[in-house]
Amino acid sequence: MTDKERDGAVRLTVAGGYGRSIDVAKGQYVGIRDIEGGQCGDFWAIDADDFDHFFSPSHTWVHLGRIQPRVGDELVTNRRAPILTIIADDVGWHDMLVPACDQQRYERYYGVTGHRNCHDNFLEAMSKRDWGNRPVPQPFNLFMNTYVEPDGTMLIRDPISKTGDMILMIAEKSLIVVVSACPMDLNPVGGQGITDLEILVGDTKEAALRPKKKRADG
Amino acid sequence: MTDKERDGAVRLTVAGGYGRSIDVAKGQYVGIRDIEGGQCGDFWAIDADDFDHFFSPSHTWVHLGRIQPRVGDELVTNRRAPILTIIADDVGWHDMLVPACDQQRYERYYGVTGHRNCHDNFLEAMSKRDWGNRPVPQPFNLFMNTYVEPDGTMLIRDPISKTGDMILMIAEKSLIVVVSACPMDLNPVGGQGITDLEILVGDTKEAALRPKKKRADG
Repeated sequence: MTDKERDGAVRLTVAGGYGRSIDVAKGQYVGIRDIEGGQCGDFWAIDADDFDHFFSPSHTWVHLGRIQPRVGDELVTNRRAPILTIIADDVGWHDMLVPACDQQRYERYYGVTGHRNCHDNFLEAMSKRDWGNRPVPQPFNLFMNTYVEPDGTMLIRDPISKTGDMILMIAEKSLIVVVSACPMDLNPVGGQGITDLEILVGDTKEAALRPKKKRADG
Repeated sequence: MTDKERDGAVRLTVAGGYGRSIDVAKGQYVGIRDIEGGQCGDFWAIDADDFDHFFSPSHTWVHLGRIQPRVGDELVTNRRAPILTIIADDVGWHDMLVPACDQQRYERYYGVTGHRNCHDNFLEAMSKRDWGNRPVPQPFNLFMNTYVEPDGTMLIRDPISKTGDMILMIAEKSLIVVVSACPMDLNPVGGQGITDLEILVGDTKEAALRPKKKRADG
């Protein structure tokens, strides 16, 4: 499944509705590409040396003074340490508010049992890495389009990411990155279909920006 | 410290800068009173029968479609189960975005070591209850005045709670409630002074609304 090419970059396809993990060394670039567009990707970054230490949206909001990160922004952990910096971003608008969808989300709100979900995708992706019974951290929901109105109303809108759109970050620590191509097909998050994502890890920005997978119909 | 009075209600003073925990049975009312006004209270509600199950802001946002809860709103857990319902609220605007202040907050952002903080107040308050090494959950920051602008900017504004203002909730499960009278005195959260809060627990709304502690200068 992994494709390590002559430039040393690793390119990994995350099948729509499923999750995968990948190692990213300190100083490496990690990109997440929305191959067809409109596909939410729940993203986690875990300190490879300490699983109790991971990227945290709420600590990042205080660090940035913003709930929406921008190019150049430093993302921080639950101990307020830098963990990733955003280098490039074709979309410029993602979500950090919504928790991973889980069995209860599908059961309580849609009456559907046994649906794939990002919570369990995270645990599956980490199952061979001794994650144990730790709770699933709050994700960074790439290519997800939420909006907070002045009165506090939170809207989940249709996604705005287009074919091939990508966000590129650099790792400030050695990490395990987990990406779940969100299986939510019952509301605007993925109402237009569940498709694949691609994770790209490289030593240079150029290598990490070079996609493996072409658009399915392209 | 606990004052159980003839009406059966329990009234507990939380000293400014410190934290305390209290048991709340299913169906009981729990109120948090800002005795002098302008004092942020980090609030947690833990399932008394399962410490891995607790009130979660992010799951509540999805449940309500709002990041600001209102009177009548049901707050939910990290398993999307109802845990508290808001019965009355003198302020009507609180924060659920900001994580508990911790040692790293004071050290990295203000260069202050050894400052009291809500993260450690939670652990102190739970130290006799076998919390173990679980992470500190995201709190509900009562009487804290944050605001999200349309571009995602998060502002921490001066508090708007007045002398004696209170929020009253009813427990949908048997809970341990933890409140930390936030010691943050280095930004607008508590820039006007750190003061006491009061926790009131009663079997009736009327009992839970009756304060013990008068305003310090009143």
